[in-house]
Amino acid sequence: VLEEYLINVLMPNQDLVGQHILITAGPTREEIDPVRYITNYSSGKMGYALAEMAKKRGALVTLITGPCQIPIPKVDEVVSVLSTEEMLHAVMSRYEQQDVVIKAAAVSDYRPTDRAVQKIKKQKEGSMELSLTKNPDILWELGKTKNDQILVGFAAETENLIENATSKMNRKNLDLMVANDLMQPGAGFHCDTNQVMLLYPNGQSKSLKLEEKKKIADGILDEIAYLLKEKKA
Amino acid sequence: VLEEYLINVLMPNQDLVGQHILITAGPTREEIDPVRYITNYSSGKMGYALAEMAKKRGALVTLITGPCQIPIPKVDEVVSVLSTEEMLHAVMSRYEQQDVVIKAAAVSDYRPTDRAVQKIKKQKEGSMELSLTKNPDILWELGKTKNDQILVGFAAETENLIENATSKMNRKNLDLMVANDLMQPGAGFHCDTNQVMLLYPNGQSKSLKLEEKKKIADGILDEIAYLLKEKKA
Repeated sequence: VLEEYLINVLMPNQDLVGQHILITAGPTREEIDPVRYITNYSSGKMGYALAEMAKKRGALVTLITGPCQIPIPKVDEVVSVLSTEEMLHAVMSRYEQQDVVIKAAAVSDYRPTDRAVQKIKKQKEGSMELSLTKNPDILWELGKTKNDQILVGFAAETENLIENATSKMNRKNLDLMVANDLMQPGAGFHCDTNQVMLLYPNGQSKSLKLEEKKKIADGILDEIAYLLKEKKA
Repeated sequence: VLEEYLINVLMPNQDLVGQHILITAGPTREEIDPVRYITNYSSGKMGYALAEMAKKRGALVTLITGPCQIPIPKVDEVVSVLSTEEMLHAVMSRYEQQDVVIKAAAVSDYRPTDRAVQKIKKQKEGSMELSLTKNPDILWELGKTKNDQILVGFAAETENLIENATSKMNRKNLDLMVANDLMQPGAGFHCDTNQVMLLYPNGQSKSLKLEEKKKIADGILDEIAYLLKEKKA
């Protein structure tokens, strides 16, 4: 019992040894011209915390990251991308060898239809229309071509959280959905803490209490470790 | 002679003592909804270098800054803003007491016409139009209401640099235009160095060679110190 206690205290949980886990993190950038772009408030903190904690628990971690301003965790492979299309290619080309894919990145749903090669000059008129084209849906592509991988998605919403997150989970063939209420204090992009709800395709759900993103990451990885064990059994 | 030499080496140039200098820096953000926004690649490095060097030379420095990822220099007043409209108000309310205004910020020319209160859901259709409204032109407002201030603008261009910069200088009633060729290696937003051309309303111009942004800042401040001295005389 003492031995077990010491192992638990001194050694982090090693329940993900040998598992290939791919994690996406951060925002993407969609350029309008060489100077301007569309992006979002994702900081990458949640994805980086997942990558760090998965590595600590023994997983072989690939991190595909959009442009972030925080230190990159030491994992097995780091791929930096800019746009959603670049992220799609980086993820799909590594999909087959993964046991788990966690899509924590907040990718741009749209990109400017035509990226201008030169900086667009200001027009005389008071307004203009920017044409946007829908980006490929990475999570949907992953769900469609899923083989034996465990697929985990994030839904960051400002309203109708459970409804939107459940619908997204089903449409995209996920095994686990992490639902994130951006309107809650202490949760979402700007924070070092988060509060999430875990949703399962069988209708079950579980609330994780407000905590630091590393603790939330561990909670999510506990669920993934359980799903991996269940699959083997 | 030795004394003069020591003063020059040990003491920075104090030719801006008592001058009120307002500097804007960085990009602005124009929110589409609570999650997404339009911004640009401005890092704030050039504006922060100007603020730091102006302070060293004895000026009373106000820095109005958009969201940047670099350390804020120690100056007399720092005002953080997000959007172009916020920057306009911060600048105009402090304009009267300034001797010099340097507009090094890269503000968004347009903002989404309607900022959505809730995160916009992805549409079924493959494309969408984003309506943009022209932002107020801060530099034009400054030029229009200029009293006795020295007004310095930046033009960051990817083509027709001199032509575009000269036209902008004249339209906006500037005393000095710093023209920035974004296409030149070692110049522009991504760099710690810059190479600029200084343009004057009388048609004169001067090229500063490729150097660190702090050195470039000093070169620009040399010109400003000269303009201030000329005005007094």
